[in-house]
Amino acid sequence: MVGADQLTTRPEDLHCYSYDGTAAPHLPAAVVFPENVEQVGKIMQLASRYGFPVVPRGAGSGMTGGAVALRGGLIMAMARMSKIIEVDEANQIAIVEPGVVTGDLQRTVRRHGLFYPPDPASLNYCTIGGNAAECAGGPSAVKYGVTKDYIIGLEVVLASGDIITTGARTEKSVTGYDLTRLFVGSEGTLGIITKLVLRLLPLPPYKETFLLTSTSLKRTTELVSEILNAHIKPCTLEYLDRSTINVVADFLSSPPPAGTEALLIVEIDGEQPVVAEQTRRLRELLAGQSEFTLRQAGNDKEIEEIWQARRAISPSVLKLRPNKISEDVAVPRSRIPELVAFIEQLSRDLDLIMLTFGHAGDGNIHVNIMLDRSDPDQAERGKQAKAALFRQAIALGGTLSGEHGIGFSKAPYLPYEFNDATIALMQRIKGLFDPKNILNPGKIFPPPEI
Amino acid sequence: MVGADQLTTRPEDLHCYSYDGTAAPHLPAAVVFPENVEQVGKIMQLASRYGFPVVPRGAGSGMTGGAVALRGGLIMAMARMSKIIEVDEANQIAIVEPGVVTGDLQRTVRRHGLFYPPDPASLNYCTIGGNAAECAGGPSAVKYGVTKDYIIGLEVVLASGDIITTGARTEKSVTGYDLTRLFVGSEGTLGIITKLVLRLLPLPPYKETFLLTSTSLKRTTELVSEILNAHIKPCTLEYLDRSTINVVADFLSSPPPAGTEALLIVEIDGEQPVVAEQTRRLRELLAGQSEFTLRQAGNDKEIEEIWQARRAISPSVLKLRPNKISEDVAVPRSRIPELVAFIEQLSRDLDLIMLTFGHAGDGNIHVNIMLDRSDPDQAERGKQAKAALFRQAIALGGTLSGEHGIGFSKAPYLPYEFNDATIALMQRIKGLFDPKNILNPGKIFPPPEI
Repeated sequence: MVGADQLTTRPEDLHCYSYDGTAAPHLPAAVVFPENVEQVGKIMQLASRYGFPVVPRGAGSGMTGGAVALRGGLIMAMARMSKIIEVDEANQIAIVEPGVVTGDLQRTVRRHGLFYPPDPASLNYCTIGGNAAECAGGPSAVKYGVTKDYIIGLEVVLASGDIITTGARTEKSVTGYDLTRLFVGSEGTLGIITKLVLRLLPLPPYKETFLLTSTSLKRTTELVSEILNAHIKPCTLEYLDRSTINVVADFLSSPPPAGTEALLIVEIDGEQPVVAEQTRRLRELLAGQSEFTLRQAGNDKEIEEIWQARRAISPSVLKLRPNKISEDVAVPRSRIPELVAFIEQLSRDLDLIMLTFGHAGDGNIHVNIMLDRSDPDQAERGKQAKAALFRQAIALGGTLSGEHGIGFSKAPYLPYEFNDATIALMQRIKGLFDPKNILNPGKIFPPPEI
Repeated sequence: MVGADQLTTRPEDLHCYSYDGTAAPHLPAAVVFPENVEQVGKIMQLASRYGFPVVPRGAGSGMTGGAVALRGGLIMAMARMSKIIEVDEANQIAIVEPGVVTGDLQRTVRRHGLFYPPDPASLNYCTIGGNAAECAGGPSAVKYGVTKDYIIGLEVVLASGDIITTGARTEKSVTGYDLTRLFVGSEGTLGIITKLVLRLLPLPPYKETFLLTSTSLKRTTELVSEILNAHIKPCTLEYLDRSTINVVADFLSSPPPAGTEALLIVEIDGEQPVVAEQTRRLRELLAGQSEFTLRQAGNDKEIEEIWQARRAISPSVLKLRPNKISEDVAVPRSRIPELVAFIEQLSRDLDLIMLTFGHAGDGNIHVNIMLDRSDPDQAERGKQAKAALFRQAIALGGTLSGEHGIGFSKAPYLPYEFNDATIALMQRIKGLFDPKNILNPGKIFPPPEI
């Protein structure tokens, strides 16, 4: 069915494919590297006949366990299906295989004057297929939306091995049910994505990057809505609290001034006159507010430093404590100040370091609860903090996950957000697509014991 | 279950609710006007128990028969659930009931400095619920997308009467499967939408309207891609061929010059400096191309005339022949010239008047095949023309419908676009949501006899 070099069961290989960003490894029985859709189809036929789990995997950079073989079985690593099949400049479309690295796609289409906006922090190693399965976001979402907004068609292999296509190559299509969106964000539980039709945008010709430091966390979280309601539409509006700044300050050649309580990375892109006008408005909004200091990045090196610092947060926080619980709740952006104040209080009440940072512009706040899991008491308090955070996010009109997905790490909390009828309907959809429960079992839905 | 004034079985009422834009009436047995979600739930429980069809209906302005009671039963008219429940300025969200008229919503949010872009030609009478069920588009889609791009959450009553919620109030959410998008565009076959959470945009402060006349149809259809690839992003890029212009010329106080073969309505909106820059580029692109004449609308009256003419196309074409077949195929926009040339040839071959007009910017071309159905030979040629049009649209990488949906009028052609496995999967989803086939039966899927 596949070549000898396409399958491995060697323990050292299996260990490499046992983990993702959740740091909760589960060993698969084997790893297969399909090279085309026909092979994927045949493997699924086999899995369907013998009933073994199949877990599709991109780069394993997910944060909720989507690519982890929770119940063993076969990891289907999509790395060898990594062709950019077509870049159609006239229609601003790309057709790609799932194993293409997101950053590589961005660089390729840029040479055609085009732009693929989604930019997860892992963009230099994560893949489009994984991005689609999890519906990855990124800083640019505040202006440009997330992965689902750029996928207009798919080729998918179902649990049965049947190959289907969804969507179209046109911007508009309303033929039948929107299966494309059902697969995007379904975390490999409904089918294996083997080809994607992506919409692209014209490359914005101009961009300015600003670093805004503030002596007030509260005012910074309030400022986010004020910026957007002042008709300024940044393509980046990333926020870091003081603890987060401390962790990554080494990346910056000129560290933030003493007394800095929060930091905003603001970028504005587009036509030059638009950027100039929006910059003018931003300066106008900040005029006379002494708690803010705006500094414009003067050159590419400074911009690179800022982004290195931002992208280094996730790995760097482990300096503080050996383990972390990494969450990405989202709330309507006007509620961010309440959420952040709640987290500050929670951190004090439970005596745990909690960092907040992330995509303030769309209300998607990353919360890192730092702890040492070898201390049972800390582990227990971490669990309490996580549940309290989810409850509060929902109470504020928010959601469990803005961009990381549910995987297994948030699965027990799904009933916080949806009523029984909604979850039952989702489970029936899962049962319809995958009656033997072989596609990434154990993900999204609460384990039966809860 | 409902008040006496909420149900009618009087023949004169039933006739009023028997038709939509397809002009192929089917009498329902009764019409009910629910006033809240609980009533919708109870009615669906009843329908589920006794197995009668329920057809949800907005304003009946659909073009593919979505609101027609093909197999009798109950029309559920959503007109009395027409509250704008909330406009949340800070988070740029509106929460509405399905019976709200699209144009009323636009005017309401405009008073808050906000913008709901989807603008079907019927916007002054069609409803948000109907727009969501069919995934309506409109001229602004070229820049702003269609209805589905503005719906982030729903409340839906299932066939069983169960009430579920989907999506979130946040811009980003990846919790569970994307049920929102599954319901949007499902034409009332999966559930009854009883509440919608809509995302809004800041109102663009400035807009310019242009009328571009051309002596060459071919050059006009080619120009569409040239405009978009020159980094000009109009919010309207509507095209009319010569036959269409003739039909609506009376609406314009200064008719297009003699020799006009095609017309483009071009609008550019946004911040004033952007509009100025984009206008400059448009003029630069057209400089020295003598086949084009660009005229800027000087005042609101001229703009209103242009739009009256555009929106009058659909009713006015019946001046030419008593009946029409109204289609809305979409192709990748670089293929529009080929599609339009094909239609011209088809029109000659089959000796039928065919008009083309519509949303050139996103490749969504409206084709009106004019005929007299009382002449069996013309009716037969009309059918041939429709099938040939669909085949060609698919061959060019396109889709059966850009924004009208499938309803019953395009249902037989679904296999042109999707393979058996894809259609079977969609039908199994339908069966899962609606096991007794009571929700808008006979829509989307090919009738069994074909």
